[in-house]
Amino acid sequence: MPHRSLVTAIVIDVPGPQLADEVAFWGGATGHQLAGLSHPEYHGARLTPTLVLLVQELGSGAPRVHIDIHTDDVAAEVARLTALGAEEVDRVHDWAVMRDPAGLPFCVVQARPGELDGTAATAWP
Amino acid sequence: MPHRSLVTAIVIDVPGPQLADEVAFWGGATGHQLAGLSHPEYHGARLTPTLVLLVQELGSGAPRVHIDIHTDDVAAEVARLTALGAEEVDRVHDWAVMRDPAGLPFCVVQARPGELDGTAATAWP
Repeated sequence: MPHRSLVTAIVIDVPGPQLADEVAFWGGATGHQLAGLSHPEYHGARLTPTLVLLVQELGSGAPRVHIDIHTDDVAAEVARLTALGAEEVDRVHDWAVMRDPAGLPFCVVQARPGELDGTAATAWP
Repeated sequence: MPHRSLVTAIVIDVPGPQLADEVAFWGGATGHQLAGLSHPEYHGARLTPTLVLLVQELGSGAPRVHIDIHTDDVAAEVARLTALGAEEVDRVHDWAVMRDPAGLPFCVVQARPGELDGTAATAWP
């Protein structure tokens, strides 16, 4: 299916006890205070017109960083990435959690209407 | 010291045996083939005017993702981030390896002349 996608977010995942320090540090480090988002496990700030930095509170697991790909067609993008060697492992809200060939988690997220217009998003036939 | 900084790269670190698959996957995933760079442990591609995706071959350790901050003054940026709670753990080439409060590694890298001009880089007094 014709659609578009772009890497648009870096997500820092940390357990609850480290959340406040991590949100404060990355707000100071980037100069953009990370605000609470509608999904309460996330804090975030826009760093550039096409890059957002998020900190997510993890229920369990070690701290890590993951990539988010935004797309105007999650199903088509998941199918395309699966054919390239990724594996879908979960669906949360309107995004898919996948693992790349090295086992690293990343997410494929539904873009807001118009979000990818005028960006360097790649168009897939 | 007055200087500027911006999150400009996402770096995927993988052990050698997984390198080729990871470079191929992320090239296909983004639509930008990851080319070998002057430091031979790196492959990379520019995804947007201010975001590069790199895959680094690790000598050891588990796969992970880390953030690079580019700056026109590495020493000043390292000092600023240290004051915010990060720790410098190594110097490699012209960049510093640091850890954030959750222990996640990230790098502070010397920007090329003019690289940060006209970007959303934050200016620090």
